[in-house]
Amino acid sequence: MKATPDKPIAVIDTRIAYQNPWLTVREDKTVRMSGAEGIYSVIEVPDSVVIIAVNASKEICLVDSYRHPFEAWFWELPGGGGDGQDPVQAAARELYEEAGITANEGVVLGRLRVCNGLMTEHQVVVLMTDVVVHEHVEREDETRGRKFVSLDDIDAMVARGELGDGQSLSSLYLYKNWLAKQL
Amino acid sequence: MKATPDKPIAVIDTRIAYQNPWLTVREDKTVRMSGAEGIYSVIEVPDSVVIIAVNASKEICLVDSYRHPFEAWFWELPGGGGDGQDPVQAAARELYEEAGITANEGVVLGRLRVCNGLMTEHQVVVLMTDVVVHEHVEREDETRGRKFVSLDDIDAMVARGELGDGQSLSSLYLYKNWLAKQL
Repeated sequence: MKATPDKPIAVIDTRIAYQNPWLTVREDKTVRMSGAEGIYSVIEVPDSVVIIAVNASKEICLVDSYRHPFEAWFWELPGGGGDGQDPVQAAARELYEEAGITANEGVVLGRLRVCNGLMTEHQVVVLMTDVVVHEHVEREDETRGRKFVSLDDIDAMVARGELGDGQSLSSLYLYKNWLAKQL
Repeated sequence: MKATPDKPIAVIDTRIAYQNPWLTVREDKTVRMSGAEGIYSVIEVPDSVVIIAVNASKEICLVDSYRHPFEAWFWELPGGGGDGQDPVQAAARELYEEAGITANEGVVLGRLRVCNGLMTEHQVVVLMTDVVVHEHVEREDETRGRKFVSLDDIDAMVARGELGDGQSLSSLYLYKNWLAKQL
């Protein structure tokens, strides 16, 4: 196996370096165009969903989520593992679990690579409308609140550093582009 | 160590499950509020930079980058490891390495969590202006071209699925918000 200009990182061996139920670390032994050997580890993670749930006032649902890597709570879009389901179905499940919200309409806005250089995960961005807000039965300790916020207020939160995860912002990028096409 | 409503995932033990020069997989043994024990693995990755380099025509620099996790080439914003440097310095280095471009002005637009639920990495988004485009000496086999593209053309690329990494789109989200404040 030789590296070529089209495929400049050739894999000459590979092993599973670590695995748990949610991710696999695959360590590839590589060779570059120069002939240099090295390793490149790829985090294999299944596709996830990120949900933009919009109410009749055009406000977007945010959830207050505990993120263990930072040991902190953050407002962000609801989302979670796709679990191999159809993305709209997975989004409906996550939206109900995290925010107690159901929706009568769901459409996929796009599919983004979460962290290109390191992970295989795609986030499928699902817009859910015609929502019904139920009593919020918190099923997971890692969410503790929900609120509907206008896009302008979201941008104010971003400016204040209160909403700052790439997965929410890239999803909202697609939503703003979708909105611009509806006018 | 007990889980509490404020910190619903308590860590009762931890180990380094895997490590290479670019990342560490830390496997935490956890206990939840219910008392259930489990594991939570966190990918520890240093901060990176993503660069929005804008020329005098208000076009943005994209680079054609090989991404080994997908074994494919994608147009995206330049970026890379921060290597512990000041973000503007790191951005200047990456921009020259990847695109042969230097810039006389650099400002940090924000700092985003790349993949909240899994990784510790922040991407620092750096806007670089007053750029000088040099002959493009490709120092890395994993980039093979650069181009300057207007925001409208970027959005057309996004719609066609030609630009679809979350790190670029979340960075461009911050840039559009910054632009809106300049008017």
